[in-house]
Amino acid sequence: MRYRRIPDETIRRLPIYLRGLLFSSEQGQQDISSRDLADFIGVNSWQIRKDFSYFGGFGTRGIGYNVEKLIKEIKRILKLDVLRKVALVGVGNLGSAILAYPGFKMYGFDIAAAFDIDVQKIGSKINNIKIENVSKLSTLKKRGINLAIIAVPREAAQRTAEGLVKAGVKGILNFSPCYIMVPKKVKVITIDIAMDLARLPYYMPAG
Amino acid sequence: MRYRRIPDETIRRLPIYLRGLLFSSEQGQQDISSRDLADFIGVNSWQIRKDFSYFGGFGTRGIGYNVEKLIKEIKRILKLDVLRKVALVGVGNLGSAILAYPGFKMYGFDIAAAFDIDVQKIGSKINNIKIENVSKLSTLKKRGINLAIIAVPREAAQRTAEGLVKAGVKGILNFSPCYIMVPKKVKVITIDIAMDLARLPYYMPAG
Repeated sequence: MRYRRIPDETIRRLPIYLRGLLFSSEQGQQDISSRDLADFIGVNSWQIRKDFSYFGGFGTRGIGYNVEKLIKEIKRILKLDVLRKVALVGVGNLGSAILAYPGFKMYGFDIAAAFDIDVQKIGSKINNIKIENVSKLSTLKKRGINLAIIAVPREAAQRTAEGLVKAGVKGILNFSPCYIMVPKKVKVITIDIAMDLARLPYYMPAG
Repeated sequence: MRYRRIPDETIRRLPIYLRGLLFSSEQGQQDISSRDLADFIGVNSWQIRKDFSYFGGFGTRGIGYNVEKLIKEIKRILKLDVLRKVALVGVGNLGSAILAYPGFKMYGFDIAAAFDIDVQKIGSKINNIKIENVSKLSTLKKRGINLAIIAVPREAAQRTAEGLVKAGVKGILNFSPCYIMVPKKVKVITIDIAMDLARLPYYMPAG
C-alpha cells in the first residue's frame, strides 16, 4: 500500500506513538484507544487520529487499535521492520552513554561500530563494541552500515560528517551542538539535548 | 501583551527557531527572512510564518525578521528571559555529558546542583559542580531550584521524580528510558535519545 505525502510533523510523531505502543505491548495490552494512548504519551488524541488517517486509519470504533498490528504497521512505514546497523563517532561521555543506552534496540537499531580519535580509547571495548580509529570510517560501506551518530566536539562535527558521507552514510543523527552541512541526498537530524528543556518553563506556574 | 492559546506544537518549535536565531546572531546577522531561517534549521518557511502569527507576526515584508528583537521576543514567550537554575539527578555517562554540555547556557539555564547515589561520586566535582548525596534533594526549594533533569537508570526514575516533586520541582526533563507519573501541576518532558534516530530511515533512499 502506498500513502499520500505525509507531513514531516506526522513522521516526527510516529516514533512517539511507536514507543508508547511498545511499552503497552510490554505490559501485555492487546488493544488501546486513541485516548489512552494520548494520555500515556502526552499527545492529543485528535492528533493521533489525524496522523493515522494518512495511512487509512488503523482503529476499530469502540475497540481502538490493536497494539501489535499498529506496532508492525508503524515500523513498516518508518522502514524500521529490518535490523539496521549504526555507527557511532565520538566516544566521550555522551558517546559512552549512547553505547550503553538500551533504547536503540527497541527501534531495531544495532550500534555495530564505534570510532574515536583518542589513541587511549582505540582498541578498548564498551558494551562489547570495540572502539576503532576514526581513520577507518571508510570501511563502513563494505560493512553495510549507512546510518551514523555523531557525538564529537563541535569543532570536529563538520569534518566527521564529511568523512561519513564519503563512506556512503545516508542518514546522520548529530548530537554535536552545531549545524552541519551535507549533500541533499543525505538526511541529517540535529539533536540539542538542551533544547527540550527550553520549552519547560513555558508550562510551569509562575512564582 | 497576551496571546491567544498557542498550540503545543508551536511551543515545541520555538526553541528550534531560537536556536537558529542565536547561531545567526553569533555570525553577526542583523535580519533574516523566514526562508533563510527555514533553510538553516530545516523547518518549512510557511510553518515559521504561521507559528509567528500567533504572536502577531514579527516580520517586515521584504526585510524579514530582526534577529535580536526576535530572540528577545521568543525568550520572553518561553519565559527564558531570566536565568533559571536547574538540578541534575544521576551523574553517570549521560549525566556527565549533560554537565559538560555547553548548550544549556544558550537558553539561560544554569545547572546549579547535581545529585547521585554513588558514594564514590558524592563530593567530587564535574565542571565545577559538586556532586551531592541524592538524600539532599529536599534542599532544592530553599535554593530556588524548581527545574530538574533526571538521568538515572530506568528503575530509579519514578522514585527520583517523586523526590523532586516533594522538593517543590515544577518541571522535569526526563532522560530515563521510561514514562514517569507525577501530579498534574508538574510538567514532565521525556526525552528518548534513540527516538530521533527512528525517523531517519524513512528519509533514506532505498538500497
